[in-house]
Amino acid sequence: VDLISALKLILPEERLLTGADLAGNYYHIWRMNEPLIAKALVLPKTTEEVSAIMKVCHERQQAVIVFGGRTNLVSSTKPRGDEVLISLEKMNAISEVDLASRTVTVGAGVILENILEAVKEKELLFPLNFGARGSAQIGGIIATNAGGLRVIRYGMTRNLILGLEVVLADGTIISSLKKIIKDNSAYDLKQLFIGSEGTLGIITKAVLRLYEANRSRNSCLVALNEYTKVVKFLKHMDKGLAGTMTGFELMWPSFYAAATTPPAEPKPPLPHGHNYYVLVESLGNDQTNDQTVMLELLETALHEKLITDGVLAQSESDLQWFWKIREDVHSCVSRSTHDQHFDISLPIASIGGELAKIRENLLELEDVNEVYVFGHVADGNIHLIIDKASEELSLKNAINDIVYHPLTALGGSVSAEHGIGLDKKAYLPLCRTAAEIALMKQIKIQLDPYNLLNPGKVLDLP
Amino acid sequence: VDLISALKLILPEERLLTGADLAGNYYHIWRMNEPLIAKALVLPKTTEEVSAIMKVCHERQQAVIVFGGRTNLVSSTKPRGDEVLISLEKMNAISEVDLASRTVTVGAGVILENILEAVKEKELLFPLNFGARGSAQIGGIIATNAGGLRVIRYGMTRNLILGLEVVLADGTIISSLKKIIKDNSAYDLKQLFIGSEGTLGIITKAVLRLYEANRSRNSCLVALNEYTKVVKFLKHMDKGLAGTMTGFELMWPSFYAAATTPPAEPKPPLPHGHNYYVLVESLGNDQTNDQTVMLELLETALHEKLITDGVLAQSESDLQWFWKIREDVHSCVSRSTHDQHFDISLPIASIGGELAKIRENLLELEDVNEVYVFGHVADGNIHLIIDKASEELSLKNAINDIVYHPLTALGGSVSAEHGIGLDKKAYLPLCRTAAEIALMKQIKIQLDPYNLLNPGKVLDLP
Repeated sequence: VDLISALKLILPEERLLTGADLAGNYYHIWRMNEPLIAKALVLPKTTEEVSAIMKVCHERQQAVIVFGGRTNLVSSTKPRGDEVLISLEKMNAISEVDLASRTVTVGAGVILENILEAVKEKELLFPLNFGARGSAQIGGIIATNAGGLRVIRYGMTRNLILGLEVVLADGTIISSLKKIIKDNSAYDLKQLFIGSEGTLGIITKAVLRLYEANRSRNSCLVALNEYTKVVKFLKHMDKGLAGTMTGFELMWPSFYAAATTPPAEPKPPLPHGHNYYVLVESLGNDQTNDQTVMLELLETALHEKLITDGVLAQSESDLQWFWKIREDVHSCVSRSTHDQHFDISLPIASIGGELAKIRENLLELEDVNEVYVFGHVADGNIHLIIDKASEELSLKNAINDIVYHPLTALGGSVSAEHGIGLDKKAYLPLCRTAAEIALMKQIKIQLDPYNLLNPGKVLDLP
Repeated sequence: VDLISALKLILPEERLLTGADLAGNYYHIWRMNEPLIAKALVLPKTTEEVSAIMKVCHERQQAVIVFGGRTNLVSSTKPRGDEVLISLEKMNAISEVDLASRTVTVGAGVILENILEAVKEKELLFPLNFGARGSAQIGGIIATNAGGLRVIRYGMTRNLILGLEVVLADGTIISSLKKIIKDNSAYDLKQLFIGSEGTLGIITKAVLRLYEANRSRNSCLVALNEYTKVVKFLKHMDKGLAGTMTGFELMWPSFYAAATTPPAEPKPPLPHGHNYYVLVESLGNDQTNDQTVMLELLETALHEKLITDGVLAQSESDLQWFWKIREDVHSCVSRSTHDQHFDISLPIASIGGELAKIRENLLELEDVNEVYVFGHVADGNIHLIIDKASEELSLKNAINDIVYHPLTALGGSVSAEHGIGLDKKAYLPLCRTAAEIALMKQIKIQLDPYNLLNPGKVLDLP
């Protein structure tokens, strides 16, 4: 039986798309206005269907790519054209919110925002939060080990996964949908699949850890003039806010100006002209008391000359205002002729000096117009958006070299949260040793000997 | 060259023990008054020495066991007699406390308590905390993925590891000693080794994540009469204490009585006769305010009849008093004719009913005298100590069956934190599927094809 006929035995017609249906570009890939070319796109509804699909593909050594919300930024779901595409969007059931265990059990295709809403109703919090929350699906989020805005307190996606169900390349189902926080019963297999970008297995279901919903939310925006004071201010706030600090976001002047100057809508809460701006967030239980604590910490910081200016959000609209500025990546992109994005990480102490050097080196390139810098500094994760004159490959590579090369000596990473995909594969050896990469390949070959799962992504195999 | 001669080329005489030196039982294994029998015990000082030792062993297909503090409770470091024992106790350097990154870089042989002290001096906190802190070494702690008393807030050991250096079975060094919280540069290899009980690689060095030291510590002890109220009280306290709750420890009456009745020294802070006792801990920043918050939460809980009685620690000596009771495993052991220990986990909602049933079933066995139950209930992790009349194997197995068998249907685990080792190997299939265990074996064989690393532990290989 040929591939398509074999798939037809598993799926009804409306969940198996081929030929013209695909060419119609129904499945739009973010920032890629290209029609989708593939042998087929399948829409399974159950783990058993995914398993059956993989058995068919495994028998025929047919490569596959798994589609989630396709918001990935490193071409992790970009097809070559000869794959079967498995979209998990129909596995979108939130099957259980468990109030006592404080867990939610979800299909891989559930959109993050729907999870946030479903648990909020039960006065629980799923702390994962990032820009693409309205379209990113939890399966892809787990496969990417997404980070976001609250990692300092709640960790990466990895830390929020209690149970996972995965289909291997040969169709074997590895299922462990436990709701328990502590489980040392031999190897923790789920760790293998989290962050493997669809190259080791297909995530079909997960049990997520939830927290009690916060009753208070406070934010302040401060200005500082020296990077060493940013580090001291981080320690000051983290200590003072005890366990309640959830965000510590740093913005360099070019980013802050872009997000607070027309056509950007928000006015600047603090004047332009400072060297660093930090947005701090706490999630707590008592609005009045927590606000007082934050205010006192700001007063001490001002008194000790850690910060030069500061403003506390006094209302929900202030909160929205401050966070709109920080989350406004669009203003940098729209001001750019062409844009190139980075999500590096490096040790906190090095960030100030290194980013200044990187920015300077980038601006020396004739075709670089501006460098916007911002990031989750408490996690060591800095984002750059480069405004450049063209999409020329030589320029792109020159920019990559300037940003990535200092990271090796510093013990940094070419990807803090976006992953490797296709785009960063060439730079992986800058932050992982040859022995590490060899071991990764060994594991990949062991789990997927025909290289069927997302081939060509993350690692180059023989 | 024979094994010992080859090892002599790597290590000086005083760091290579054989024959009579070993038989002298110099290396005492906790709770095992047996002389150590092995081909040799080696004491490397560097990762390179460990690598050279493994190359020698790999060439000769010589099995090894790694020794840390040997406080393991499931015979994970028990020798068969034909192994080379590698004790990492001389790799005990705390090489750097980084105040900005809030990390400490340590050799595998550093004792936990020494880490706690070293970072405390810098006003930082390494939140791992458990009974064996005075002898457990960090390498073994990571290899076990130890849990302990503060998992609810800070997670298991896994969540506290930023960088790891490991020697594979063939001597390859896999080193990634990064200090960054976010790193999605391809597969997170360290996750493989954490919790693998020395069967996949030898951990030689680690970078640990630190937190700002707390300025306040508060605890309260409460009594409750229904298990459903324990769950409600957990949610009440967790919400109210926002991010500061670090412990929520449940004690059943038999445990509480044993720890507060002579010859146990402490008096009972609350009278005997209640059904459940909970000890809550918070680590915060402001002693006065945090104590007021805890007091108000207790008052609400009393008013809402969640708890029937409660007492707040008013001083450091109260804190010591309450925690001495909770940490007093000794009183249960010393009251037991023979003792058998468990560290199961199960979903929080099921704990009350299931543990009552398990206790009842155990007490129906003629040779079971008493069942002491306590645990980290917020993590789903319950400990049992069984006072039994004999060490007979049939009794031991009958007890194991009663405790372990309900866990399968509940989605629980036969080991929340102690690991599998030798002792729980037979029960692993109760909480992991055949497909999971097959995949574990596949990974083990791939990384250690001659089965040299801690053979016979965790998994049975052909």
